[in-house]
Amino acid sequence: MSLVVRNIPRAEPAAVNALAGFGVATVHEAQGRKGLLASYMRPIYRPAQIAGSAVTCEVAPGDNWMIHVAVEQCRPGDVLVVAPTSPCEDGYFGDLLATSLKARGVRGLIIDAGVRDVAVLTGMGFPVWSKVIYAQGTVKETLGNVNLPLVCAGALVSPGDVIVADDDGVCVVRRDEAAAIAEKARQREANEGDKRARFEAGELGLDIYGMREKLAAKGLKYLDEPPQ
Amino acid sequence: MSLVVRNIPRAEPAAVNALAGFGVATVHEAQGRKGLLASYMRPIYRPAQIAGSAVTCEVAPGDNWMIHVAVEQCRPGDVLVVAPTSPCEDGYFGDLLATSLKARGVRGLIIDAGVRDVAVLTGMGFPVWSKVIYAQGTVKETLGNVNLPLVCAGALVSPGDVIVADDDGVCVVRRDEAAAIAEKARQREANEGDKRARFEAGELGLDIYGMREKLAAKGLKYLDEPPQ
Amino acid sequence: MSLVVRNIPRAEPAAVNALAGFGVATVHEAQGRKGLLASYMRPIYRPAQIAGSAVTCEVAPGDNWMIHVAVEQCRPGDVLVVAPTSPCEDGYFGDLLATSLKARGVRGLIIDAGVRDVAVLTGMGFPVWSKVIYAQGTVKETLGNVNLPLVCAGALVSPGDVIVADDDGVCVVRRDEAAAIAEKARQREANEGDKRARFEAGELGLDIYGMREKLAAKGLKYLDEPPQ
Amino acid sequence: MSLVVRNIPRAEPAAVNALAGFGVATVHEAQGRKGLLASYMRPIYRPAQIAGSAVTCEVAPGDNWMIHVAVEQCRPGDVLVVAPTSPCEDGYFGDLLATSLKARGVRGLIIDAGVRDVAVLTGMGFPVWSKVIYAQGTVKETLGNVNLPLVCAGALVSPGDVIVADDDGVCVVRRDEAAAIAEKARQREANEGDKRARFEAGELGLDIYGMREKLAAKGLKYLDEPPQ
Amino acid sequence: MSLVVRNIPRAEPAAVNALAGFGVATVHEAQGRKGLLASYMRPIYRPAQIAGSAVTCEVAPGDNWMIHVAVEQCRPGDVLVVAPTSPCEDGYFGDLLATSLKARGVRGLIIDAGVRDVAVLTGMGFPVWSKVIYAQGTVKETLGNVNLPLVCAGALVSPGDVIVADDDGVCVVRRDEAAAIAEKARQREANEGDKRARFEAGELGLDIYGMREKLAAKGLKYLDEPPQ
Amino acid sequence: MSLVVRNIPRAEPAAVNALAGFGVATVHEAQGRKGLLASYMRPIYRPAQIAGSAVTCEVAPGDNWMIHVAVEQCRPGDVLVVAPTSPCEDGYFGDLLATSLKARGVRGLIIDAGVRDVAVLTGMGFPVWSKVIYAQGTVKETLGNVNLPLVCAGALVSPGDVIVADDDGVCVVRRDEAAAIAEKARQREANEGDKRARFEAGELGLDIYGMREKLAAKGLKYLDEPPQ
Repeated sequence: MSLVVRNIPRAEPAAVNALAGFGVATVHEAQGRKGLLASYMRPIYRPAQIAGSAVTCEVAPGDNWMIHVAVEQCRPGDVLVVAPTSPCEDGYFGDLLATSLKARGVRGLIIDAGVRDVAVLTGMGFPVWSKVIYAQGTVKETLGNVNLPLVCAGALVSPGDVIVADDDGVCVVRRDEAAAIAEKARQREANEGDKRARFEAGELGLDIYGMREKLAAKGLKYLDEPPQ
Repeated sequence: MSLVVRNIPRAEPAAVNALAGFGVATVHEAQGRKGLLASYMRPIYRPAQIAGSAVTCEVAPGDNWMIHVAVEQCRPGDVLVVAPTSPCEDGYFGDLLATSLKARGVRGLIIDAGVRDVAVLTGMGFPVWSKVIYAQGTVKETLGNVNLPLVCAGALVSPGDVIVADDDGVCVVRRDEAAAIAEKARQREANEGDKRARFEAGELGLDIYGMREKLAAKGLKYLDEPPQ
Repeated sequence: MSLVVRNIPRAEPAAVNALAGFGVATVHEAQGRKGLLASYMRPIYRPAQIAGSAVTCEVAPGDNWMIHVAVEQCRPGDVLVVAPTSPCEDGYFGDLLATSLKARGVRGLIIDAGVRDVAVLTGMGFPVWSKVIYAQGTVKETLGNVNLPLVCAGALVSPGDVIVADDDGVCVVRRDEAAAIAEKARQREANEGDKRARFEAGELGLDIYGMREKLAAKGLKYLDEPPQ
Repeated sequence: MSLVVRNIPRAEPAAVNALAGFGVATVHEAQGRKGLLASYMRPIYRPAQIAGSAVTCEVAPGDNWMIHVAVEQCRPGDVLVVAPTSPCEDGYFGDLLATSLKARGVRGLIIDAGVRDVAVLTGMGFPVWSKVIYAQGTVKETLGNVNLPLVCAGALVSPGDVIVADDDGVCVVRRDEAAAIAEKARQREANEGDKRARFEAGELGLDIYGMREKLAAKGLKYLDEPPQ
Repeated sequence: MSLVVRNIPRAEPAAVNALAGFGVATVHEAQGRKGLLASYMRPIYRPAQIAGSAVTCEVAPGDNWMIHVAVEQCRPGDVLVVAPTSPCEDGYFGDLLATSLKARGVRGLIIDAGVRDVAVLTGMGFPVWSKVIYAQGTVKETLGNVNLPLVCAGALVSPGDVIVADDDGVCVVRRDEAAAIAEKARQREANEGDKRARFEAGELGLDIYGMREKLAAKGLKYLDEPPQ
Repeated sequence: MSLVVRNIPRAEPAAVNALAGFGVATVHEAQGRKGLLASYMRPIYRPAQIAGSAVTCEVAPGDNWMIHVAVEQCRPGDVLVVAPTSPCEDGYFGDLLATSLKARGVRGLIIDAGVRDVAVLTGMGFPVWSKVIYAQGTVKETLGNVNLPLVCAGALVSPGDVIVADDDGVCVVRRDEAAAIAEKARQREANEGDKRARFEAGELGLDIYGMREKLAAKGLKYLDEPPQ
């Protein structure tokens, strides 16, 4: 039996929007270096930077039927997250579905499979992070679940979790941690601004972070000339 | 023995040019979801969109000699299709060969191997779809066939078939089906225009395509809240 | 024990700068088709074209500590070359390290692993050639060598070798061959300019290179029509 | 902060042992075609067939420290499941750790990374399913969680879930579904025995499953000779 | 529309059986180094060596319905060749289908996708060459063609072509060339037997094949000691 | 110009043979975790375990001519190491070359490309570690160097270095370090024997290596029950 969950809890819009501003690397660090999707998930155009609440959609290989079902569950500010039940490169998603999602205020698509019509999607400004770009069409025969937890590109995504995506890839933040992580990201970024100025002025990380002593203790040796 | 076929039948220019306008995803659907080359065939710059008649060229691994032979067989409106006899990433093709092809009115290159000088090719506006970008040079020692059927990136290409390529990848249309497929693509695109307007207006695919009943018949269930 | 070599010999700046102008494909050919790094090493933005003296940095998987050590050894005109001791996709390098390298006059980074903050790096104009783009953070626990020879993406790089990198990938030139290779590259490019004009005028490679006789001798046959 | 959970609920031994007998393909089907780990997870020797309760262990890339921590949490009948926080091929596990696990009654190892000493492990009869075989050693510097849920090779594994592994790969069964799935697998296998006899006798799947009518309704056509 | 062709021409059994005896490397060389399927096509057990007439079967991703249709078209001495319309790793084939094929006298399966139940298949002695081993189940919803030409793992296979498969991989021989290729393979093998004796006696290929002069002419130089 | 070096220094036979006995994982650890070739280098049969002095051979893609040249330079106790100048999967090596090498007392082949006739090679007991198994034949047209340093599967190999290979993969030991590494490997193995007994007796690595305090200092926490 396949299920569609209609009402899912979502994170506070303020936290979601704050996370959008920090980007993937900062958010990933702020939450303890977890939550990244696999590195093969790449944006179809650059630059692109979004955050939104996950609506999750499980699809069969070569079958995009459930994406139509999932669209109805999307609300403004959401990000659609699609994962096949076994690896597939087919082009599940193109300009008509993007038009539909955009009309509903959806901020982007994360799909562990293929996407097509990328020239049109680029023109529309509808961002997609996908495994590949591939025109292969799909059928509409097999059911899957919508808004149940799934694994997408190696990361567990629960409906309502916050998806943060930019040119560095895609990260997921647990819904109930979104506000706290946004705050940690803010602190991290503030801290980095200070460091950036010091690096620009020519200071070294060795000194800024006080690494020299620990390196020496571990046994690092310096030679003035290449060994013979 | 290696062969070069001088005179190959080509599709009607009108059909070829019509196919160029529709793009890969539409043409692939119009001909019953067949003919795509593998998803790893990517354009060296975007956007790029062409169609043309295939001149086919078989090459040995690490040996681009036959490309020079194939160039002579190319005519205005053609697309050169190159496939190695075993997997190879070498940079078989660069700016001099592109200059030569451009001078002959060739519209682009499809190569299941590597290409180089991509900055110059981009500047020239000569589009290439390749497996990789790689500077590795090649030798000129081993023969191959020109204008015999070959498999390129998983698809059978016969000389004179129509190659359609854009940001979504590459598709091949049988020469004697080109006109019919162009007409089907036209109908498909007309039909999509209407749907696009309905999607923009907020209608759902579930309703436009009348999917709700079939989904229910297959057993799809809706829950108002997440299961416990 | 891990070592850092402080003073490494570098190639003449004039040779380095000349090599920067020729690009990877030409330099690779000029030195007898050797020295290319693997084709998966791609620039984070295009176009990008540099040459510089290699400072080499060995890192543990998931550990970017030694990059901080290597930064101190970099001088204006250098290129930092980083290779992990086993395959790793982590994002060892981001905008703070790029700020530090830029402040020291470093021309770019070559890393057989991941990089992050690519939108910022693109904005800064700091070029990176990497295996992947990935936000995964790293730890600072394990030592490695700086300025000892290493294998990066399949190529041996010794400290002080010249790195040439552009949209086609990355090539390494031995330090003591840099001036000679630059001169050969100059000759090659001059020679190609002449050929380019002939190709533009419609001459064929078959004639420019005098290939027809050798092809016939090897057994190439021409058919006027496709074989039945 | 990293956590180790000492007491985890485990499935009934009877259900676990029943699942061991059915194998991966049957169990995967019995639970509705879910729970498979990625196809790259292969046994180091064949045949091998086990089931056991998952003890989960998160490791940093190139760092096997937490495996030593996890060993202590293993009990007879368990299977250790190890996943790195970013992709890694290193040989986290060899004959000493296998000796330790075997002494504790552990039935095997599932690791989304590398393993080494495979000749010794084969001789010991300690089965491992891994991503690769690779001798690369690891450090002991970075913490991770033990017995928290993790994603291993694309599948969510919670501590105490049942791991089923054989020559076809690896499957995970939720702890609280283990008994029910074992019963479904038993029914499925009984049903297959009957079918096997009919297939052996020369009956066709087309007739056993009554497919001919549905195929015809979908539009399947038969030709007596190849089309011209 | 999907088609099933009932009666396909097959090669002479004598030629097919002769080809089985020579193996893939010899047959591939005998026909001019063509016809190999991709190197990722590996046998599920070794040693295995067969030849047979191809029955071709196109399947949708994740859908094995057409295999049941194809089984009916198989005759004693055939080899079933299955290719998905887009890349797929699913386990389309297991012990029940193998039982059915074996009952019909089919010699083996070539599938550019996944296979499962490999322990049982090994016990049965039913050889399979596949892309991966994976337990993922498939649906039965979408039609495809049976006994039309298709591309399998990069090679064009027409129904009735001869498939030769062994531990080195898979090769296809055109039906109307089978007898001639079998004869060429016989000659090649006879010729190799003589050479093998000379190699065993310590003669060098340099002398057996008379290479020294050609190597010198190309410019090969010998040094008595390593260059400084 | 291509060079063949006739007389290369080799390591002491006693050191080479001692290294053969320890295996790859132990030798790799003994020399400070360096020298491994890439994990894709796999033996064509298992078990297999050798060590020998490297004769290095550079080949063009799809061209095995230089292997014939290299054979003449091999002496009893050597291991032939072959690397292509760009990535290639072709079957450079088969049973005739193996017969020739075996007649010369060569212990095995390491090739960063393809090998064929693996059933015969297995029967002969001639071990090969390769990137793939593939029957694709090669030409004899292009020169390369023999007995100059090269990079094979990511590792630098100089002629006369010691190659150690077993079921875990391939490792290279510098010639002038061979005796010292053999001694370190001996010590390591002696030390491991003691530990193995303790593990067998049920002692934990946590206690044997005294890890508990350091883990606690890093912040590891234990929970008696799963967190809610």
